[in-house]
Amino acid sequence: MSKILIIGAGRSSSSLIDYFLSNAKTYAWHITIADANKKVVESKITNYKEVASAVEFDVNNVSLREELIKQADFVVSMLPAFMHGDVARDCVRLGKHIATASYVSQDMKDLDAEAKQKNLLLLNECGLDPGIDHASAMKVIHEIQDKGGKITSFKSFCGGLVAPESNDNPWGYKFSWNPRNVILAGQGTAQFIEEGKLKFIPYNRIYTQIETIEVDGYGKFDAYANRDSIGYKEPYGLNDANTMLRGTLRMPGYCKAWNVFVKLGLTDDTYKIKNANTLTYTDLLEAFLPKGSASVKDKLVNFMGVDIDAEVMSKLEFLELFSNRPIKLKEGSPAELLQNLLEEKWLLKTGDKDMIVMQHQFEYNLNGANKKLESSLVVIGDDEVHTAMAKTVGLPLAISIKNFLTGKFKLYGIQIPTVKEIYEPMLSELEGLNIIFTEKEV
Amino acid sequence: MSKILIIGAGRSSSSLIDYFLSNAKTYAWHITIADANKKVVESKITNYKEVASAVEFDVNNVSLREELIKQADFVVSMLPAFMHGDVARDCVRLGKHIATASYVSQDMKDLDAEAKQKNLLLLNECGLDPGIDHASAMKVIHEIQDKGGKITSFKSFCGGLVAPESNDNPWGYKFSWNPRNVILAGQGTAQFIEEGKLKFIPYNRIYTQIETIEVDGYGKFDAYANRDSIGYKEPYGLNDANTMLRGTLRMPGYCKAWNVFVKLGLTDDTYKIKNANTLTYTDLLEAFLPKGSASVKDKLVNFMGVDIDAEVMSKLEFLELFSNRPIKLKEGSPAELLQNLLEEKWLLKTGDKDMIVMQHQFEYNLNGANKKLESSLVVIGDDEVHTAMAKTVGLPLAISIKNFLTGKFKLYGIQIPTVKEIYEPMLSELEGLNIIFTEKEV
Repeated sequence: MSKILIIGAGRSSSSLIDYFLSNAKTYAWHITIADANKKVVESKITNYKEVASAVEFDVNNVSLREELIKQADFVVSMLPAFMHGDVARDCVRLGKHIATASYVSQDMKDLDAEAKQKNLLLLNECGLDPGIDHASAMKVIHEIQDKGGKITSFKSFCGGLVAPESNDNPWGYKFSWNPRNVILAGQGTAQFIEEGKLKFIPYNRIYTQIETIEVDGYGKFDAYANRDSIGYKEPYGLNDANTMLRGTLRMPGYCKAWNVFVKLGLTDDTYKIKNANTLTYTDLLEAFLPKGSASVKDKLVNFMGVDIDAEVMSKLEFLELFSNRPIKLKEGSPAELLQNLLEEKWLLKTGDKDMIVMQHQFEYNLNGANKKLESSLVVIGDDEVHTAMAKTVGLPLAISIKNFLTGKFKLYGIQIPTVKEIYEPMLSELEGLNIIFTEKEV
Repeated sequence: MSKILIIGAGRSSSSLIDYFLSNAKTYAWHITIADANKKVVESKITNYKEVASAVEFDVNNVSLREELIKQADFVVSMLPAFMHGDVARDCVRLGKHIATASYVSQDMKDLDAEAKQKNLLLLNECGLDPGIDHASAMKVIHEIQDKGGKITSFKSFCGGLVAPESNDNPWGYKFSWNPRNVILAGQGTAQFIEEGKLKFIPYNRIYTQIETIEVDGYGKFDAYANRDSIGYKEPYGLNDANTMLRGTLRMPGYCKAWNVFVKLGLTDDTYKIKNANTLTYTDLLEAFLPKGSASVKDKLVNFMGVDIDAEVMSKLEFLELFSNRPIKLKEGSPAELLQNLLEEKWLLKTGDKDMIVMQHQFEYNLNGANKKLESSLVVIGDDEVHTAMAKTVGLPLAISIKNFLTGKFKLYGIQIPTVKEIYEPMLSELEGLNIIFTEKEV
């Protein structure tokens, strides 16, 4: 019998929790779910009383955290990424395995040696992106390399979007995950390699230097470069690739409109505007525009010049930016004030379905011939709770933990799903759950 | 007898040290100068052996710091701003006064109550900008208000530049203070009030939304908005002003050229480029440009469009950006790599003179009439060591400490030179040292 502790039962945890609950009897698991909101957890486990229990959890209660971890065999942290460190340190000290869907942090690196020595697993980057992207890319990369092919170019794109049937706003976007991350997306400088050359795109033009990708049956998408792609060369074994780019997908036209906010400065999160609730969103917009007697709308059009068009304007009008809509927050950064508006405008409503789109593009040389291969994934959510996002973040994690607990792989210390032992059984079970990549020679 | 401890004898400290040394006998002071480089200090005090001593100082040596502070009556911290906190905490604990030329920090605010209770002075913002700007602005503001005038608009500009006789590069700029601050200048969002409205300018367009100011005898200057001007309304007693703007001055054309670096992303300090010394500055430039087969110069011209012209190009060519000049640093952020180049190109050479320019612009209503007043200051340095920057940063601080020690003002806790008791004797002594504002009704 294995005792699994899940910390955090928020938006992204629903499919993960369902998977553990429905498989608990089969594998002799006991599932403890700890969350700040015990009632929500209790409603989720009503039908699983003999295999699951709910615990009210306060992240600041160190002794409770320690007590819960002590009683578990395997800990899954679904907390915000910056909170994994404390949980992981307790786990390694107390001799427990831990898994997260987040990027490998410095905290994890600091624990790696001790975890290896104690035969403890520190599974990370095992959600969607990072997670399924690693697994599905590595599968193709290994297949090409096993045939003797040499990969010259690798591009990989992913986006958490809204399904066509629920796409009823001009942005083609609704929140299926942490809204704050969407508002701040792209901040910093994107780094990648293109045709053998180092490339940097700073935030101020990340939404203007976009490319278009196409997924059969789903049409075209905007793609903008995402963070540091160069760091993936080595873990992916692509040291010879001339092009290495990871990007984020949005519906066509989204980037041009979002760039208005970037250029204005409306996504800045570094200072607070006081007494914001004495202003309207039109005042806020005007505060970022040069002075003048024209209407705010006309000033914006003048200011943006060629960077604005009727489609962009309809997106901005949908947000009531020119309608003197009052700001509700008493104080907030421009980014926070914008988020507060978008959380209402981009809400995933009852019955709405979200959509995950991922596409890898490989160029490789095999026996002297240059070839192109595309591997694409589209997942549509069931509804606004059982989202494609929750499935694709939670299931690879849950499946991999099961595979570890049932001895399908025996690896310790920091692991991410770039190795065959982890990604092969993960991808094959995901296929059974209708999370299926389609490959296409171009 | 007063014992004065000066911590930090760098570039900006020369005039401050000279002032203390030459006045030491008159006022019965003993001056201890603590710096990482004891030899430099020893050379400065050769002629002042009976009133001064040099100490080798390691910022990390907590017990030495405490020992030195214990022996002093008044401590002057000329360390980088982020280091003042430790010094100030020691001072307040040990019952010593402290002065800095830096902005009032949270550390200082935290010490304010205890300092007031112990009758200890925490003098801050007592250099050039902040410092002389506060003093000279408040003098005019108080004069106008004393006559019954109401100030409707206040703009204040300051720049550390190169004197016309030493202006021999196309940028019209050489480093007279911390180069890193020049490279990172403007990052964040400028906040000000213009014609009664809140205004924000983010970094991505701070160097494009400039205004031109003119100083009699010295011609025109570019001015870009500087940090948070709104926070000055209250301390300046200008709650009714419709316009409140502080700005930074550069020679005409500087901003248009610097904006190339901002738009490219070359001033980013948030990530390191590894093996940078395998690249040239032309490679670095290319990494920020879209791909293409044209020369780097042609790609840049295409990329910048209307934002580039022959004058900008001559500035970039002066920096050898198109000449495959090797990068020397093994690793660095884009900002650090750029700084490394500029430190050579913008060096204040032997005999070079720097120049400080400051201008306040007041609009006010007096007896029903609208009036305009300009108050301007130009200070030229003696040479590359006795710079206008060192004089205008160090002298107001030294003078105010003397005025405090001689009982000219008796104020405790956090003080900045916005109050008459501090600014009046400071400005009057500065006039005797040829740091003189010229007022002009416009």
